Amino acid sequence: MSSPAGLAEIQRGAHEIIQLEDLADRLAEDRPLVIKAGFDPTAPDIHLGHTVLINKMRQFQDLGHDVVFLIGDFTGMIGDPSGKNATRPPLSEEQIRENARTYEQQVFKILDSQRTRIEFNSTWMNRMGAAGMIRLAAQHTVARMLERDDFHKRYKEGKSIAIHEFLYPLVQGYDSVALEADVELGGTDQKFNLLVGRHLQHVYGQKPQIVLTMPLLEGLDGVNKMSKSLDNYVGVTEPARVMFGKVMSISDELMWRWYDLLSLKPESTLREYRRAADAGEANPRDIKWDLASEIVERFHGPAGLSQAQDDFVARFRKRELPDEIPEVAVEAPDGSLPLANVLKQAALTSSTSDAHRMVKQGAVKMDGEKVEDSRREIPAGSRHVYQVGKRKVARITVH
Amino acid sequence: MSSPAGLAEIQRGAHEIIQLEDLADRLAEDRPLVIKAGFDPTAPDIHLGHTVLINKMRQFQDLGHDVVFLIGDFTGMIGDPSGKNATRPPLSEEQIRENARTYEQQVFKILDSQRTRIEFNSTWMNRMGAAGMIRLAAQHTVARMLERDDFHKRYKEGKSIAIHEFLYPLVQGYDSVALEADVELGGTDQKFNLLVGRHLQHVYGQKPQIVLTMPLLEGLDGVNKMSKSLDNYVGVTEPARVMFGKVMSISDELMWRWYDLLSLKPESTLREYRRAADAGEANPRDIKWDLASEIVERFHGPAGLSQAQDDFVARFRKRELPDEIPEVAVEAPDGSLPLANVLKQAALTSSTSDAHRMVKQGAVKMDGEKVEDSRREIPAGSRHVYQVGKRKVARITVH
Repeated sequence: MSSPAGLAEIQRGAHEIIQLEDLADRLAEDRPLVIKAGFDPTAPDIHLGHTVLINKMRQFQDLGHDVVFLIGDFTGMIGDPSGKNATRPPLSEEQIRENARTYEQQVFKILDSQRTRIEFNSTWMNRMGAAGMIRLAAQHTVARMLERDDFHKRYKEGKSIAIHEFLYPLVQGYDSVALEADVELGGTDQKFNLLVGRHLQHVYGQKPQIVLTMPLLEGLDGVNKMSKSLDNYVGVTEPARVMFGKVMSISDELMWRWYDLLSLKPESTLREYRRAADAGEANPRDIKWDLASEIVERFHGPAGLSQAQDDFVARFRKRELPDEIPEVAVEAPDGSLPLANVLKQAALTSSTSDAHRMVKQGAVKMDGEKVEDSRREIPAGSRHVYQVGKRKVARITVH
Repeated sequence: MSSPAGLAEIQRGAHEIIQLEDLADRLAEDRPLVIKAGFDPTAPDIHLGHTVLINKMRQFQDLGHDVVFLIGDFTGMIGDPSGKNATRPPLSEEQIRENARTYEQQVFKILDSQRTRIEFNSTWMNRMGAAGMIRLAAQHTVARMLERDDFHKRYKEGKSIAIHEFLYPLVQGYDSVALEADVELGGTDQKFNLLVGRHLQHVYGQKPQIVLTMPLLEGLDGVNKMSKSLDNYVGVTEPARVMFGKVMSISDELMWRWYDLLSLKPESTLREYRRAADAGEANPRDIKWDLASEIVERFHGPAGLSQAQDDFVARFRKRELPDEIPEVAVEAPDGSLPLANVLKQAALTSSTSDAHRMVKQGAVKMDGEKVEDSRREIPAGSRHVYQVGKRKVARITVH
């Protein structure tokens, strides 16, 4: 039996699919499947790491399926009721609507807005009532919930788990019931919660959804998961020039990974790229150029891409930067270092006071951008190109 | 400093008071305290065991406090959502109203109906919503909930605990917040839940309630907690004659315990009874007569009591039964024995077929009542007077 159309495309880059046979069967049915992916309404400022999932949604869309962009506003409006997490204040309805608009602006660079269904889980959760919440909580056991890695660890270590934390996975799972989802997409860190959805659909008499997890994208350093706090990210609203330079700065190895997870080019093209690079027929740098171009065009269009390419050529090809930039590693035992200390330790300046002076004179650039504050903290995990004056340059990894 | 009025009365029979000093302070305030006691809407058929708590409510009422008879209809309407407990079907609103009326008929024999506030917790819980339930759940931790004896035991033994079971104590605790309770009364088995109420009141900015636990009343056998399933109970709707006979059947030791927990006579009277019995100036049987009379009069009035007394005298004093009834114990290794086997083992009949025949002839009585079914299962823990014909009689304890 041959695989249904699109199965190979959907498997691409996926970490795990539960169950693959079921997915093949449903793809073979002559109907649009309901594809669910949930998003937190608190962080609408997305980076390439988030787009891994959104790309997968786009693939389903291109195959004609019904893609639901689910905004978890119900829990967002609750915030952190234990009051322990000051970074999770309850959001108002207006804030959530505002965040949703920002999301839309960003994700519709990838998704087809005409064919994306945006849903808010408050629609059904606000109707559920306390009694409904209790009935829902009856469908799962304490022991099984304590099997979730983070709960298990905290319980063993005597760290407190508030009871409402057991309810959130149930709400997320119930969203699948409310949507009658065929497939739920999520990061590998979401696997437990996605399986709760399967369980609840079974309890509520539905066919359990297929769970498809995508790996977490490594950031610019090629090691850590991409995240804002590690400063190893590419934000989708960053200027075209910055975005292009950041993608061009990654290692060849990481480039193949990013191709798998971020490119929408067909499998056959990727295979040909790899073959050509392995055979020495193509320069990896040119293949990286194509990746940077695809990503920048997605978020900034052809005109933005063209400018970014010109800018890159101007700075790198015209020898503002040497072709080969030395790699330097400096240590930040406390998790970060002031810029002046980074420059001194990497021997780009003779001392920290020299570094302060050079910054003041406007002679220091990070990734081609002039920096103003020599005391700025550079976090461990970051990797940038630093220039001091015309001649001194290094790509410095702080760890 | 002298104790405030009523403190000694309230302490009588109590198992534990948290905190006694706080109770003394609040009794000294010049205001009616809010006294809460919660009742399950599923079992309106109450026995003397339940009345221990209700008597304590009455004492508070006599001291001028505001007594709240709280019916937990919110959880009653949910039933057992896991579906595992077939004996806990969800109740309809009509069933609950009907049960509440039955409760009232029974408890207003003890409580002053004019000064009892009947509340239903659905009043506030139906307004709470799923989001409110989540906020409430955030106020307690998984680890602390697992400290409750039964949860701890089940978790250790690998028996499943459904998550909603963690929510019920929170609902009960929240009831104290909604009522702004000063004192909550409950059985010793309720201590954990009553303390949750204290915790939640603290979280919601209220002064934590005083927790007063009452011991569980031993049944007719003097050993096990009074319960219907053990058949060692006195129901408050049983005929006056049966009730009187059952109370007269308890041991002298148990009688003192029942005086403490069931009588509303003043402390001074009880002290005098005990002194007289110890000094040999009074027959314990006469003191028991007073206890039976007080209890029967409470539920059947003076006319009912008078009839019951006459009946008792007719049956016992007029030698329908000998003054001294032999005590016999028989064993039921499986938890119960058919009546015919009980009679045979106690040597009231020569064989089980003899027993079947005697029952058929209408010659067998239990507690003075003719029995019809010789195969009736007599549960372990029960204690009754059995007669076969005129001459054979024994008080048989099955264990």
